[in-house]
Amino acid sequence: MAKTKNILFIMFDQLRWDYLSCYGHPHLHTPNIDRLAAKGVRFDKAYIQSPICGSSRMSTYTGRYVHSHGASWNGIPLKVGEITMGDHLRKTGMGCWLVGKTHMRADAEGMARLGLEPDSLIGARVAECGFDVFERDDGMLPEGPDGYYDPDGAKEYNKFLTSKGYESDNPWHDFANSGLDKDGNVLSGWFLKNSAEAANIAEEDSETPYLTGRGIEFMETHDGPWCCHLSFIKPHWPYVVPEPYASMYGPQHVLPVVRSDAERQNAQRVLKAFMDTKIGQTFSRQDVRDAVIPAYMGLIKQADDQMGRLFDWMEQTGRMEDTMIVLTSDHGDFLGDHWMGEKTFFQDTSTRIPLIIYDPSPEADATRGTVSEALVESIDLAPTFVDAAGGEIAGHILEGHSLLPILHGTADEAPREFVICEYDYSASPIADLLGVTVREAVMFMVANKKWKLIHCEGGFRPILFDLENDPDELIDLGDRADHADVIAGMYDHLFSWTRRQSQRTTRSEQQLIEMRSKSRGKGIVLGVYDENDAPLDLTVKYRGRTARPYQDYTKPSGD
Amino acid sequence: MAKTKNILFIMFDQLRWDYLSCYGHPHLHTPNIDRLAAKGVRFDKAYIQSPICGSSRMSTYTGRYVHSHGASWNGIPLKVGEITMGDHLRKTGMGCWLVGKTHMRADAEGMARLGLEPDSLIGARVAECGFDVFERDDGMLPEGPDGYYDPDGAKEYNKFLTSKGYESDNPWHDFANSGLDKDGNVLSGWFLKNSAEAANIAEEDSETPYLTGRGIEFMETHDGPWCCHLSFIKPHWPYVVPEPYASMYGPQHVLPVVRSDAERQNAQRVLKAFMDTKIGQTFSRQDVRDAVIPAYMGLIKQADDQMGRLFDWMEQTGRMEDTMIVLTSDHGDFLGDHWMGEKTFFQDTSTRIPLIIYDPSPEADATRGTVSEALVESIDLAPTFVDAAGGEIAGHILEGHSLLPILHGTADEAPREFVICEYDYSASPIADLLGVTVREAVMFMVANKKWKLIHCEGGFRPILFDLENDPDELIDLGDRADHADVIAGMYDHLFSWTRRQSQRTTRSEQQLIEMRSKSRGKGIVLGVYDENDAPLDLTVKYRGRTARPYQDYTKPSGD
Repeated sequence: MAKTKNILFIMFDQLRWDYLSCYGHPHLHTPNIDRLAAKGVRFDKAYIQSPICGSSRMSTYTGRYVHSHGASWNGIPLKVGEITMGDHLRKTGMGCWLVGKTHMRADAEGMARLGLEPDSLIGARVAECGFDVFERDDGMLPEGPDGYYDPDGAKEYNKFLTSKGYESDNPWHDFANSGLDKDGNVLSGWFLKNSAEAANIAEEDSETPYLTGRGIEFMETHDGPWCCHLSFIKPHWPYVVPEPYASMYGPQHVLPVVRSDAERQNAQRVLKAFMDTKIGQTFSRQDVRDAVIPAYMGLIKQADDQMGRLFDWMEQTGRMEDTMIVLTSDHGDFLGDHWMGEKTFFQDTSTRIPLIIYDPSPEADATRGTVSEALVESIDLAPTFVDAAGGEIAGHILEGHSLLPILHGTADEAPREFVICEYDYSASPIADLLGVTVREAVMFMVANKKWKLIHCEGGFRPILFDLENDPDELIDLGDRADHADVIAGMYDHLFSWTRRQSQRTTRSEQQLIEMRSKSRGKGIVLGVYDENDAPLDLTVKYRGRTARPYQDYTKPSGD
Repeated sequence: MAKTKNILFIMFDQLRWDYLSCYGHPHLHTPNIDRLAAKGVRFDKAYIQSPICGSSRMSTYTGRYVHSHGASWNGIPLKVGEITMGDHLRKTGMGCWLVGKTHMRADAEGMARLGLEPDSLIGARVAECGFDVFERDDGMLPEGPDGYYDPDGAKEYNKFLTSKGYESDNPWHDFANSGLDKDGNVLSGWFLKNSAEAANIAEEDSETPYLTGRGIEFMETHDGPWCCHLSFIKPHWPYVVPEPYASMYGPQHVLPVVRSDAERQNAQRVLKAFMDTKIGQTFSRQDVRDAVIPAYMGLIKQADDQMGRLFDWMEQTGRMEDTMIVLTSDHGDFLGDHWMGEKTFFQDTSTRIPLIIYDPSPEADATRGTVSEALVESIDLAPTFVDAAGGEIAGHILEGHSLLPILHGTADEAPREFVICEYDYSASPIADLLGVTVREAVMFMVANKKWKLIHCEGGFRPILFDLENDPDELIDLGDRADHADVIAGMYDHLFSWTRRQSQRTTRSEQQLIEMRSKSRGKGIVLGVYDENDAPLDLTVKYRGRTARPYQDYTKPSGD
């Protein structure tokens, strides 16, 4: 083992924390990811900052809360000027590269205002969330009557499939994400019943092996030090996987749904609205779960096999000895639990993520194979990377904390009392249904190891879960008078967090402390009546000066 | 009267709200400013966002709270990417120009990160807080043993004085801001006892007439539509004024000090620390007040005379008919009231400002000469200007509200329940004295017309004033159990304010509402089990597609 030279930052999309065997899944065996956990630290209480791809990632990539960076939903651009992981790492001499998905939407208006050209080096980094792009692949090319959701989606991947001979104007859809019936009809993966079908693609050509290969190609061609964000699309929908993974799991491997009738009947109004969506209704059906979950598990099993390929390559090439490996997800997936699908609420099912960090340095030997119960957040990754790269953590910008002390066994906890997660549904039809304004359609979660409080703007009552006694979060205590003190206490945490100075990012704490004495010597003299009251040295420039009466200069010449 | 074509945005520095005759000062007659009030609306409850020059101004120039833009003290740069009054106005076709002071500190590090050159058009605007510079004059050239506080301070003004024949390496100090004894010794205005001296300068060469002239020169040479920020340094310290103003007021015109022994003895700890500074101690002396306040009044009287000159010129040239005129200040000055000097606390003495707006348009005829009791904030000016310029107010960026409805008599109040002011003393030695961290050395004020609550981070008790029954703010009710409900209610206001989405600035409310339906037609299909469950039109691209089995493409050629 040697010092960390590089960082391989692996992210899966929509990977639930509990769908890995090292996190306890009874049927889904992920020996390769478990192998990484055995060599590193597995964090058991890791939370994301927003239960949606774009906002969660913008927090991870900036090391800042959503409330601080403002990119609060998919498609809301990260504003120009926000400082990213890449900006911090390049200051330490480490490159920061992207292979895969970010869900970054560039702030085109802000870039135009500042005259930043997207094809310049700086402009490209601003547009790509601070990364230098080896390959950007947000992993989707949806198409509707109004055109493509993202014309650049799956761009290089579709070229790759075309070069391999797959015949289609959108092989991403027709092969990687659809099945095929015996009559040659494409069974689109957008329709969940087709999740039970095998993707009509050679396994090695599907998305996860493709991006794994691209990650290896990056490492083969870059000397470092680098941080490589290898960012997979799967197991995110469309939920379709090729053979042999398509047949690997069946309804017998689907865990019982986690929900209760009381939970639905007594649901607070905002939560109820999320249960009542078409997504919630569909995923509440067992036939849907039986179709989708085996495919979802197959996608994860495939991912684990690809991790095996990747880690083997790293061991063979020496990269395992000089590279920190981080493996995580951007959020979970309800999969019918709590009467919901997708991820846009705050139960652990959605907001808790797998997080495994392997640090090759000898300092980390003490913690290999251990499980950390520390409350950590995805904003901790950026400062951890800066710390691992030997840089100084800009604590006035980065809101997370380095996890190196935990990785090195010198701390058990991150320095925080609670975690925060946020969700903005102002761009969702649910806001109309609930009759809330754009400003009110936001929610905050504040949680420690014992309690989770959810606050919804717009005059709704809070939601409270007792995480110790009700870890499945089935009993909402938010309307219980006997929990008023707990609720008030959690609101105090939320209040103190909202008051933080999150925008004072242009001066470090050290600079502010130095400013306390700095202006003294620059001639600002306040509260001094008589020069004899003032220190001679600080006022030396104001003493012993002579002049002539102004009339000498201003009287008409010749007088 | 015609429609507003231009905006003349006049700001004085450290001008107390109650040191104008239209605001009730009994000895200081300001007929020219009063004349503007008679033609416009005088706002009686106008508050700034921070009781210090730089932060107050950054809020005014961005239309955003300090907590939103982060430039929370003098010398903390406004971060690159923040959108300014100038950015908003230029979108409407109105130029935005500076003549005088801004206290802007450019974010040099951020500009370098984005490759913005300070001498480019865009870079210069970013560095100058969004203004195009006709003349920047922050009005000070202090000098100490470690050099100049701001080497560019009073730059053009010193050149002007030199060109007029004033002989000195720093005529700003030696003539404009100092007296002279009979032996030719400069009596520096930095020492408050010298405030009683006349500045050794021809009145017409002193700072306020100089900048007034520069403002007229700007208007003479620019066709418009423009917004001209004519931003005076005075009556800010050094408190020195030339004749005839130096002899105009004496101790008999100094109002009784507003303070009480109880106020000092019972002061909450943070407030006490501000009273205990050298500044507070000095200004608590009556001899200091008797020296300083007559000079301060003279500076204001001079300013009023210059306003007469300016308004006369505008009437003669027609500018009075097409130009909105706004006259305000960036904060007040304790001048010994409440045992303090300077401005860095939250009593109205410091946080309430004069604000007079004259709108030349016929719509404003209904309100000429009236007084508005609306709770307004200095962040209301930017949206007011955009509104007057005929632009659309970017409510997702600007946090204030247009005052045009009040000016046009269609509203009595601004749409807010409370005003907010903030102060960051983390760069002050007071933080050391109180033993608070950099993150804790901040304070918030929340006030409505009845109550003012001050919250200090770091575990101090709140401060509460009853503005109706104790308008002089002498009785702190913050430790009174019988006011616990009031305190809790004011904290609720503060909490709701801190939760606002202040950083979601890249998408307008309208855009967010449109996003609710926009992605429907772009092929994202969620929660649909069977294609028969989905609208045909939205899924048309996923139907009727055909393909060949993948093995057809991938089997070895020749098979």
